[in-house]
Amino acid sequence: MNYKLVLRILGLTIFIEALCMLLPGICSLVYNDGQIKWFLLCIAINLAVGVPLSLINPKEKRMYSKEGFSIVALCWIALSIFGSLPFVLSGYIPNVVDAVFETVSGFTTTGASILSDVESLPKSLLFWRSFTHWIGGMGVLVFLVALMPLSGGSNMYLVKAESTGPAVSKLVPKVRSTAKILYLIYFIITVVQVILLLSGGMNLFDALTTSFGTVGTGGFGIKNDSMASFTTYQQVVVTVFMILCGINFSLFYLVIIGRFKSAISSGELKAYLGIIVASIAIITINCFSIYGSFGETLKHAAFQVGSVITTTGYSTVDFDKWPELSKTVLVLIMFVGACAGSTGGGMKVSRIMILAKSIVKEIKISAHPHRVHKIKMDGRTVEHETVRGVSMFLAAFVVIFAFSLLIISLDNKDFTTNFTAVTATINNIGPGLGGVGPMSNFGSYSALSKIVLIFDMLIGRLEIFPILVLLSPRGWKK
Amino acid sequence: MNYKLVLRILGLTIFIEALCMLLPGICSLVYNDGQIKWFLLCIAINLAVGVPLSLINPKEKRMYSKEGFSIVALCWIALSIFGSLPFVLSGYIPNVVDAVFETVSGFTTTGASILSDVESLPKSLLFWRSFTHWIGGMGVLVFLVALMPLSGGSNMYLVKAESTGPAVSKLVPKVRSTAKILYLIYFIITVVQVILLLSGGMNLFDALTTSFGTVGTGGFGIKNDSMASFTTYQQVVVTVFMILCGINFSLFYLVIIGRFKSAISSGELKAYLGIIVASIAIITINCFSIYGSFGETLKHAAFQVGSVITTTGYSTVDFDKWPELSKTVLVLIMFVGACAGSTGGGMKVSRIMILAKSIVKEIKISAHPHRVHKIKMDGRTVEHETVRGVSMFLAAFVVIFAFSLLIISLDNKDFTTNFTAVTATINNIGPGLGGVGPMSNFGSYSALSKIVLIFDMLIGRLEIFPILVLLSPRGWKK
Repeated sequence: MNYKLVLRILGLTIFIEALCMLLPGICSLVYNDGQIKWFLLCIAINLAVGVPLSLINPKEKRMYSKEGFSIVALCWIALSIFGSLPFVLSGYIPNVVDAVFETVSGFTTTGASILSDVESLPKSLLFWRSFTHWIGGMGVLVFLVALMPLSGGSNMYLVKAESTGPAVSKLVPKVRSTAKILYLIYFIITVVQVILLLSGGMNLFDALTTSFGTVGTGGFGIKNDSMASFTTYQQVVVTVFMILCGINFSLFYLVIIGRFKSAISSGELKAYLGIIVASIAIITINCFSIYGSFGETLKHAAFQVGSVITTTGYSTVDFDKWPELSKTVLVLIMFVGACAGSTGGGMKVSRIMILAKSIVKEIKISAHPHRVHKIKMDGRTVEHETVRGVSMFLAAFVVIFAFSLLIISLDNKDFTTNFTAVTATINNIGPGLGGVGPMSNFGSYSALSKIVLIFDMLIGRLEIFPILVLLSPRGWKK
Repeated sequence: MNYKLVLRILGLTIFIEALCMLLPGICSLVYNDGQIKWFLLCIAINLAVGVPLSLINPKEKRMYSKEGFSIVALCWIALSIFGSLPFVLSGYIPNVVDAVFETVSGFTTTGASILSDVESLPKSLLFWRSFTHWIGGMGVLVFLVALMPLSGGSNMYLVKAESTGPAVSKLVPKVRSTAKILYLIYFIITVVQVILLLSGGMNLFDALTTSFGTVGTGGFGIKNDSMASFTTYQQVVVTVFMILCGINFSLFYLVIIGRFKSAISSGELKAYLGIIVASIAIITINCFSIYGSFGETLKHAAFQVGSVITTTGYSTVDFDKWPELSKTVLVLIMFVGACAGSTGGGMKVSRIMILAKSIVKEIKISAHPHRVHKIKMDGRTVEHETVRGVSMFLAAFVVIFAFSLLIISLDNKDFTTNFTAVTATINNIGPGLGGVGPMSNFGSYSALSKIVLIFDMLIGRLEIFPILVLLSPRGWKK
C-alpha cells in the first residue's frame, strides 16, 4: 500500500470539505442563527488536519486498484467523521454515533434520520445536512479529480470506485474532463430545479435544500412531514427531478452533444422507465380507494415510486398505511434502485438486467450444455468480468444484509421494521416500513445497531467492494 | 424434445406412485378407517394412466440434458396431482388447490399445511400424507433409476436434476448402483429411527409416520401441536435424526466403506455442524429467561434449529413467540438449509460456502486485478461451471422470491407473514412466522397465493432450473 499517496488524497478530501462548510457558514450569517462560530471552528479543524496531509509528496504517484478502492473508502469515512462535527459541537446532536449516523446518511444520500423534530434545527445546520446530499450524490473524489491533476493518469480507479453501476466508463478520453462534464451537468440540473421551485413561490432556502436532496437523491427534508405540506406544483417538480436524477448522467451528455437517439435507445433507461410506470400503475389501482380521486392517487403514487426507486426517500404521505401490495411494490423497487451512473442507490437497473439475462442464459445452458451463450446489453456483449462482478455484488449484498439483520434484531424490534431498516440503509433510501416508516425515524435503535446501519449506508453508496477491500487484512501489507 | 421418452418415464413414475399407495391402503385395512375404497380407486386411476404410458417404446433411448430436466419437473407435477386424489376423493380436502398444496408440500418435504385439525384425518390419509415425505425425500426418479435400466446409460441427468446441491457426483461408476446405495442407506436410517421410537414407547403408526417426516426432512405432524406433546426422549431422537438426514448421504457411504476420516474431514459437514452449534448457542442464551432451566432451553433450541436448518419443520414450541434475535436466527438458517446430497432443502451449506469463497475471491480481484485466484473446496478447485451455477441459483432464487412475495401480498396479510410464507415454502421448511407460524397454517391464503406457493415448493425441491427449463418455450421445440 502506498501510504503517502493515500494520506495526500485523504488530506485533499478533508480540505475540500472545509471549503464546502463555507456555504452553511454563509447561510448562518444570512439568517443570523448563531452557528457561525461552530462552522468556523469546524473549518479550522478540517484545515488543520487536511492541509498538512495534502502537502505530503509521495515518491510513487501511480495508483493501483487496491489503493483506489481503499482511498475512496477511507475518504468517505473521514468525510463523515469530520462532517458530523457541526452537529456535535453545536450541541444539536450531542451523541457522536447519532451525529455520524446523520452525516453518513447525508453523504451517502440515504436520508435516514435519527431526528424526530428537524424543524427545531437552525437554518445553517439544515443547510449543511441537505448540502451533504449534494456533495455525496456525484461524489467528492469525482469532484477532486475534476478539480486537480492528481497523479499519473490513473485516477480512473477513484472514479470507478465512487461512481455507481456495474461497469464505469469514461465519457471522453480524459478522466479529468469526464469528471468536469459530470459535475457541470449535475450543477445545471440543480440550478434548473432551484429556478423552477422559486418560480413556484418557494423561498430560496427551501428551494436550495430541497434541490440538494432531490438532485443528490438524498431525501433529508426540512419539514417534519417531509413534503406533505408542499403544493402540488412543488411536489410534481420534485417528482420529475427525482426521476431525472435516477437516469445515467452519461445519457444527458449524449443529449447535449446531439446524440439524442442513442440516449433514448438505452436499454437501461427503457427498463427503468418501464418499472416506474408499472409500479405507479399498480399502486394507483391499489390505493385508489384511499384518496378517492384518480389525480390525487396518481400524484402520490408517482411521487412515492419516484422517491423510492431513485432511493431519494422524500414522502408526501405515510405509505406505511398503504395496502400490503403497494408496500411490497415499494420494498421491491427499493432493491432495484436507479440507473448506473446516476446519483441514486440500490442495486441499479443495469445490474438487475444483467442478472435477469444471466438467468435466461443459465436456463439455456441447462437445456443445451454444449452451445455457446452470450449476454448482450444495448447490442454489445457484456464482458465476463462484469457478469461475475454483478453476481458477486448480489452475493455479498445478501450476506451483508443477513448479518446486519441479525445484529440489529438484538434490539428486539419487529421483523418488518428490522428488514426494512436494513433495506432502506443499504439501498440508500431513507425511510422503511413499520418502526422506520416515513413518519418515524431511526432514533430508537441502539448505538450498536446504528453503527451497523452506518456501515450499511457506506457499503450501499460505494457498492460494497471498496469497503470490503479496505477491511481486508491483505490490502494493508506493504 | 423426445416426447415418447418423456411420456414413458412419466408413465413409470405414475405406476410407481400406484405401488406406493398400496401402503396407506394396507394401513386403512389394519385400522379399518373406511378409506380403502378411495385408495383402491386412486390406484386404479394411476394404473390406468401409468401403465399405457409406460409401455410406449421410444426409438431414440438416449437422454439429453433438456429431456432430463423436463422429465423430472413433469414427473413431480404429475406425482403431485395424482397424489392429491386420495384427499379430494375421500372428501377430507375437497378443494383441489388445497389438496394439491398439501400433496406438493408432502412430496417436496416442505410440511406446510392448509389443515387446522390434522387429528381429525383418518389414519390411512395421515399415513399417505407422511409417506409422501419419504418418497419425495430421496426422490422418485432416483428410485426409478435404482429399480430398472431405463435408457442408454444417460440416467445421470435424472439423478442430477432430482438430487440436491451444486454438483452431483456418483458414489460408484454406475448411476444405477449409486441410486441403489442411496436408497439402501435411506431405508436403513428410517428403520433405525422407527426402532428407537418404538423402544421409547411409541406405537408403530406414530413411529412410522414420525420417521417418514424426519428422514425425508418433511415435517407433517400427526398431532395438531406438532411434537410438543412428545416425550423428551422422543424429541431428542427426532432432533438427532433430523440433523443426521441433513448430512450429505455420500458421507454415510464413505463411513460404510471404512473411509471414516474422509467423511469427517468434509468442509461442508464442519460448516453445517458449526452453524448448528452457533445457532443453538445464540438461541439458548436468548431464550433462557422463557424456559428457566438450561436443559429445557437447550432441548427446544436444538430441536428448532435442527428442524429449521434441515428444513424439516417440526416444532416443540411456538417459536413465533421467541425474542426477535432467535426468530431472525431461524429465518436466516431457513435460507442456509441442509447439506448438498441430503434430503433437506434450502440453498444448501455448500452453495453458501462457494458463495462466501467467491466473495473473498472478488475482494482479492478488486485489490489485485491481474493475479489468478481460485476457489477450493476440500482441497479441490471448484469448477468455473459450478461457481457460475451457484451464482445463478442465487440470482434466480432472489427473483422468484421477489415475484412470489409481490403476488401473495395481494391477500393483504402483513409483511412478516408473507415474507416467511415464501421463505418457508421455497426452502421447503413448512412453518414460518406470524400468520404462518408453527401454530398456524397456510389455509387462509387465496387460491392464487396457494398456487404461487405450490410453485415455490417445487422450485425449491428441484432447485429451480428443472422447473424453469420446463417452462421455457424453447425447450419444447422438436
